Amino acid sequence: MSVFQVTILGTSAAIPTNSRRPSSQVVTINDRHLLVDCGEGTQMEMLRRKIRYSRLDAMFISHLHGDHVLGIAGLLTTLSLYERNFPLKLFAPAGLKEILDVTFSHTQSYLGYELEFYPLEAFEPGDTIYETGNYEVKLLPLEHRIFCRGFLFQETNKRPRFDFYKAKALEIPNNYFRLLKLGNVITLDDGRVISPAEVLSDPDSVMSYAYCSDTRYSEPLVEFIRGAQVLYHEATFLNNLASRAAETYHSTTGQAASIAKQAGVKKLYIGHYSARYLDLEPMLEEAQQVFPDTELAKEGLMIDLRKIPV
Amino acid sequence: MSVFQVTILGTSAAIPTNSRRPSSQVVTINDRHLLVDCGEGTQMEMLRRKIRYSRLDAMFISHLHGDHVLGIAGLLTTLSLYERNFPLKLFAPAGLKEILDVTFSHTQSYLGYELEFYPLEAFEPGDTIYETGNYEVKLLPLEHRIFCRGFLFQETNKRPRFDFYKAKALEIPNNYFRLLKLGNVITLDDGRVISPAEVLSDPDSVMSYAYCSDTRYSEPLVEFIRGAQVLYHEATFLNNLASRAAETYHSTTGQAASIAKQAGVKKLYIGHYSARYLDLEPMLEEAQQVFPDTELAKEGLMIDLRKIPV
Repeated sequence: MSVFQVTILGTSAAIPTNSRRPSSQVVTINDRHLLVDCGEGTQMEMLRRKIRYSRLDAMFISHLHGDHVLGIAGLLTTLSLYERNFPLKLFAPAGLKEILDVTFSHTQSYLGYELEFYPLEAFEPGDTIYETGNYEVKLLPLEHRIFCRGFLFQETNKRPRFDFYKAKALEIPNNYFRLLKLGNVITLDDGRVISPAEVLSDPDSVMSYAYCSDTRYSEPLVEFIRGAQVLYHEATFLNNLASRAAETYHSTTGQAASIAKQAGVKKLYIGHYSARYLDLEPMLEEAQQVFPDTELAKEGLMIDLRKIPV
Repeated sequence: MSVFQVTILGTSAAIPTNSRRPSSQVVTINDRHLLVDCGEGTQMEMLRRKIRYSRLDAMFISHLHGDHVLGIAGLLTTLSLYERNFPLKLFAPAGLKEILDVTFSHTQSYLGYELEFYPLEAFEPGDTIYETGNYEVKLLPLEHRIFCRGFLFQETNKRPRFDFYKAKALEIPNNYFRLLKLGNVITLDDGRVISPAEVLSDPDSVMSYAYCSDTRYSEPLVEFIRGAQVLYHEATFLNNLASRAAETYHSTTGQAASIAKQAGVKKLYIGHYSARYLDLEPMLEEAQQVFPDTELAKEGLMIDLRKIPV
């Protein structure tokens, strides 16, 4: 892939602050955008971060709490005002359809493009809910006060690589390389028969991004994101508010880091911070005590997955 | 009044731009706020402009197009999260009730305070829809593609002022001033009888603010805002797009200025600019050719009505 990037648009929990916007992120794969959650103001944040509306292919809404979804009617309307004329896929809890229908009816908004609505309730965690030739999106189980799912974006169709050094070690002349790469079994002048498997390495590990917000600490999640390259996991509270986290079905910094550690991901980003925290450094420190490769998600941050080990 | 101020939160038409937000304004009277329209992102703009949520008494929604109303569910929820426990008045087209009911049902949002909903359809243009001891709000007729009303905010109960110079000219001794101010007829030592009316000036003209967005050019509006101190009138297009303005039930800069001139207001602010205009100076120039006391509404502008002639 030439581009696999995540742009953070919003990291606030329910109440936005002066520096933090409601939840929204953009996963960019090659030249197309996928929107993940759509809190109020997302269309303006897309403008600010130079995310072109015309390159948006699909939207994924984790759950229907307002801070994850209230920007959607405005964004869908704006796409129409910009004369979008090709379909948009929307993966979301079923209730969103009624919110949009009633809102568009009273606001007299008519979308000039097809909105393909896929209710998340129709899928099971682990299911592939969307795929192209390059990547797939799988559903993740989250545990929140309301029906809620995460999303795993990962490359597909990685092919084994031709291993030049193996070929050299076998003393295969260069003029056979092309035939082997194309999958042919060859017979060398010295009578040896070489199959392609002998000169191919294992396929590269795939780049992958797991989005997990909102959820309480949930060990069943671990198996679904094992070995993921990058994990975004909510961390609404510091560890000393673990009881508040449990009550509200949110996670603490330590819990987010524990999930990252158990799953063996390469890098963790935390976000969805409670408005009570102005300084986020203590959150980072707590998480890094459990999982050192943690960073803070922040508005405008761009995560280039090609620069992170897989 | 110690404060009569308007804070502009958003001046964009349907499509927001990088520098312009959807429609919303705050009318501040003494230490209380009234919100006028509530486009997407209004709660964040209130934060940015230091408009305290706790001082919000009432909201006035002109019409249900998304750019004037899509911020309301988020703001109402945030007020609840901040533990508001006193009523909020909401004056809006009736359909907003169903949008909110369906949205709050699916987002599982429960307001911890009373939302007093007043459908605008229950009133006629010219009706006083809200009043306190200090000011009143009257309904204005606007002509848009969808049911739409403007709002006139104006002082009430102005009392006549005691005119010190008139009293001095009549050679009334100072010790009678208080009795006259209290409305008593007095008899001076020289036998003259003085009534209060002889030493009172006409009451001050009242400060007033008329909000008119969205509307096509509408002469019937003029009588409802005659003599208003400050008029905000939408000017979505330059004059050369008058036909586009007519089609979409919007106004041009020249039309907004013409309404201001006919109504004899003291000052005009234009706003609700189409996203096609990056530079607004040509809009200002066109309006000023018809009505010189025009200014551009801009995000963050504060209009202090006490500093403008009444």
